[in-house]
Amino acid sequence: MKLSTSDGLFLDDVHVGMRLVSATHLLDTAQIKEFARQFDPQPFHLDEVAATGSLFEGLAASGWHTAAITMKLITTMRPHIAGGIIGAGAELNWPTATRAGDVLRVESEVIEIRPSRSRPDRGIVLMRSYTRNQRDEIRQDLVAKLVMFRR
Amino acid sequence: MKLSTSDGLFLDDVHVGMRLVSATHLLDTAQIKEFARQFDPQPFHLDEVAATGSLFEGLAASGWHTAAITMKLITTMRPHIAGGIIGAGAELNWPTATRAGDVLRVESEVIEIRPSRSRPDRGIVLMRSYTRNQRDEIRQDLVAKLVMFRR
Repeated sequence: MKLSTSDGLFLDDVHVGMRLVSATHLLDTAQIKEFARQFDPQPFHLDEVAATGSLFEGLAASGWHTAAITMKLITTMRPHIAGGIIGAGAELNWPTATRAGDVLRVESEVIEIRPSRSRPDRGIVLMRSYTRNQRDEIRQDLVAKLVMFRR
Repeated sequence: MKLSTSDGLFLDDVHVGMRLVSATHLLDTAQIKEFARQFDPQPFHLDEVAATGSLFEGLAASGWHTAAITMKLITTMRPHIAGGIIGAGAELNWPTATRAGDVLRVESEVIEIRPSRSRPDRGIVLMRSYTRNQRDEIRQDLVAKLVMFRR
């Protein structure tokens, strides 16, 4: 893979504490149900009435839907990462359920940089991303392992 | 929330080492691109030619797409969990990229059971789920924290 040095952020360009902010995404009931039909067809993600009697006490988005929207929002961050946003893995927590009407945004921070010993052209960057709604309620806490390249 | 004792698996019914197996899902190029357009619009998930020059060396599914399909497959497992499959969080690794033509299946195993101290009606079950294709290549290794209820 050849990357031009004008292609965005390289491993050499990031530092612990660096922050990035995304655009926003307005989630509605139709999106929640459509994602659920495809990927998480459980009553509390599909039907308002059934959801009332569940742990969520009302329609809730699938956690994987929150994760997918978070990814979409991360792709809106600038400057972008050279070679793209490539995740090797992630740790996720969903402290509260994402709801219709939530205006989601993501704030990311570099928390650790691990140069690769075996492959000197790259490293792993740990990025923490909080997905919050318009009331600053945390819907997802994500720590992703991103592959980044040296110049 | 009221659950009938005929509603499936309760915390009392699971044990460490318990295994569950899913149905299968055939992933194709159209699904990969459609998910990417919505949630992860990067060239290596959208376009075969652009993907050739990327780290993936060919079209690859978004890791979040693999995660979402894994969730869908987990909902096909029987017996189902009383009250539904409710995740509090998860740890994910994507050792290899998911590709068009993959026939995915999920095999899950209960690896830890943590009764709640503060809420005696429930506990957290750690479930490890490997998502494999038809050649047994591991596309995702997931450890999910599931909320389960006592009878």
